[in-house]
Amino acid sequence: MELGPHSRPAEPGRCVSGSPSAGSVFAASLLSAAGATPGSRPAAVAAVLPAGGCGERMGVRTPKQFCRVLERPLISYTLQALERVCWIKDIVVAVTGENMEAMRNIIQRYGHKRISLAEAGATRHRSIFNGLKALAEDQPDCKLTKPEVVIIHDAVRPFVEEDILLRVVMAAKEHGCSDYDLEFGTECLQLALKYCHTKAKLVEGPPELWKVTYKQDLYAAESLIKEKISQDICVVVNTKDEESAGHLLKEVLKNELNCATITSTALDHSGGDLQNSLTDQCYSFICMTVLSSDFQETQKFLTALEESSLPLLYPVVVVLVHCLDFTLVPPTQKLESLMWIRDLAKEVKKRNVLLSGLLINYSQDEQKLQESLWQGASIIAALVKERSPALAGQLLVA
Amino acid sequence: MELGPHSRPAEPGRCVSGSPSAGSVFAASLLSAAGATPGSRPAAVAAVLPAGGCGERMGVRTPKQFCRVLERPLISYTLQALERVCWIKDIVVAVTGENMEAMRNIIQRYGHKRISLAEAGATRHRSIFNGLKALAEDQPDCKLTKPEVVIIHDAVRPFVEEDILLRVVMAAKEHGCSDYDLEFGTECLQLALKYCHTKAKLVEGPPELWKVTYKQDLYAAESLIKEKISQDICVVVNTKDEESAGHLLKEVLKNELNCATITSTALDHSGGDLQNSLTDQCYSFICMTVLSSDFQETQKFLTALEESSLPLLYPVVVVLVHCLDFTLVPPTQKLESLMWIRDLAKEVKKRNVLLSGLLINYSQDEQKLQESLWQGASIIAALVKERSPALAGQLLVA
Repeated sequence: MELGPHSRPAEPGRCVSGSPSAGSVFAASLLSAAGATPGSRPAAVAAVLPAGGCGERMGVRTPKQFCRVLERPLISYTLQALERVCWIKDIVVAVTGENMEAMRNIIQRYGHKRISLAEAGATRHRSIFNGLKALAEDQPDCKLTKPEVVIIHDAVRPFVEEDILLRVVMAAKEHGCSDYDLEFGTECLQLALKYCHTKAKLVEGPPELWKVTYKQDLYAAESLIKEKISQDICVVVNTKDEESAGHLLKEVLKNELNCATITSTALDHSGGDLQNSLTDQCYSFICMTVLSSDFQETQKFLTALEESSLPLLYPVVVVLVHCLDFTLVPPTQKLESLMWIRDLAKEVKKRNVLLSGLLINYSQDEQKLQESLWQGASIIAALVKERSPALAGQLLVA
Repeated sequence: MELGPHSRPAEPGRCVSGSPSAGSVFAASLLSAAGATPGSRPAAVAAVLPAGGCGERMGVRTPKQFCRVLERPLISYTLQALERVCWIKDIVVAVTGENMEAMRNIIQRYGHKRISLAEAGATRHRSIFNGLKALAEDQPDCKLTKPEVVIIHDAVRPFVEEDILLRVVMAAKEHGCSDYDLEFGTECLQLALKYCHTKAKLVEGPPELWKVTYKQDLYAAESLIKEKISQDICVVVNTKDEESAGHLLKEVLKNELNCATITSTALDHSGGDLQNSLTDQCYSFICMTVLSSDFQETQKFLTALEESSLPLLYPVVVVLVHCLDFTLVPPTQKLESLMWIRDLAKEVKKRNVLLSGLLINYSQDEQKLQESLWQGASIIAALVKERSPALAGQLLVA
């Protein structure tokens, strides 16, 4: 099961959608440095996740890999991180008998692919052994490919990136170590030496790769995930007026609240631009309205959103922004005509879409306008950052 | 500087206000187990905090001890934790020259007591040495007491409790080790052995004592602090009707949202009960109103709050809950009469009080009432848990 000198993982980085990440660029250069030539035989790489722990250190009854972060079990985030690496052909999760059904439900509910299950053993190493056995056996009803390299990865390290996985595979190649103890911990290096007479290599991981062990780690994981999915905000505009109001709001979000990427899209009738936005891993939308309070346009947008796979993995925040001059239309009067947002929010919340309304005082007075834009942007930033389901359906005023 | 056989820290646990914590009970029993007798001479205990680090691992420019958690620098939380232990007589913080002024401002702004400053050295151990020197020297203009035991504590471990500090002091007594390397890390045990020929004792700390090192630790610290200050909610009621509505809301908060302690208080004219609540380390208030929207009562409450020291250390959340039957008074009509909350919120936010309004549909229909109470309680739980300044001044509807 050792990696041959010229084999390499297949197509690194190609399945990660969106713009090429730093991780995949790094992966490609590493491959080239290791002397891989285009067209050389790809290595069959699999991953085994021991997930039989009972989480006694967490101080909660649920095993930590099943603790929920933004309503989704932690292990689903780890699976998602591994699935994005397309050269990992199979992923075997070792879970205890009593959690087998729950694990199957997680795989189905969150649409995980290339996952098989094995029964966890009494110890972590026994679970890894069972996972490897599942990969090695040629079972007639089994679609698993016999791999050349197996990555052993903790189920409770959700922030693993492609570059570190590739470095682990490259280290396996260079040091010819058994995959059995290929691991990030020193405990396992000793085991490798003791049982396999193999000097395993310790591949240093980034701080983000840390293991979720205690309650505070779960909090940290939630904040990091929230931060990650709140980086990109998409502003949906249709008319020239909306574009201009949206532009002002974008400036404040970018300059004063450090939101990383803010894109604009139009809700046109062909739905082309919108479709692109909905496949772009963006989980926060600001829909601008300057004049009408157009229920139908909003409904159309939300339907497209619900039909996409976007809200499957993360709660999607949608803020319907209504710009109006409060001296011409008092905000409470406008709120009355926007009460439909409350009912609509209740509906879409069932599909993991968190909808709220926001009135911005689009005053003729430049200072008042800036104040209102700043407050509006702060409210949007808080809604996007916190993704609190309890605040869905509220009509807010800036 | 060693601890004598019968000396003990003075008055353990007495300065921690509120109900006796598990920590101080444990401290008392430890003392008794160690054979301390009432009236024996108290040991002079001081603490030195090396805080000269530049936080390069955090990935941010601000040194980690000055990073803000709920708008307050992390080191202020650590100082607060040490200050609560009244038998620690002096606390010396070693900071670099360039941060000296910032540190002085922190001490003044957050009202820290018993703190002195020393200049940090080029290394952590040099900083500790400078801190100890400040304690040992009999400077004429210095109010520091020469201590018998010195606790060295990282500025970036904000969750230190009295029990562990007492165990460290007890270990110093039992093992007679130099205070210089009395520390939680193994690195320091080796130093103690090498330079002092002293076998220092490793005192095991709880997981909560972990060191804030990376960005995710700062997130974890913020969540733990938020969790801690959101445990207690105080419901302010004045009339029988308010009491009954408040009781229903309390039930939902307690049973369905796991809020730990919910107390009631009345805003009477003598201000007695209220004064007690405001010194009780409770940072979340729900003010019930069933009929009127009494601006003056609210104003009185907020003034008492602002005059207390409560908002000094943490943002205080106040939710003005208005219960009304939406079939009799439409919510938007009520919102109009509550617009004063927006202006008031802007004012009190300057003093770290986060005020919002919440309308609850106090329906005659039992099912609708329950739904509304549940939604109201969820909104309150979110406001209390997240303490987002951006959402202060909003009028929410359940």
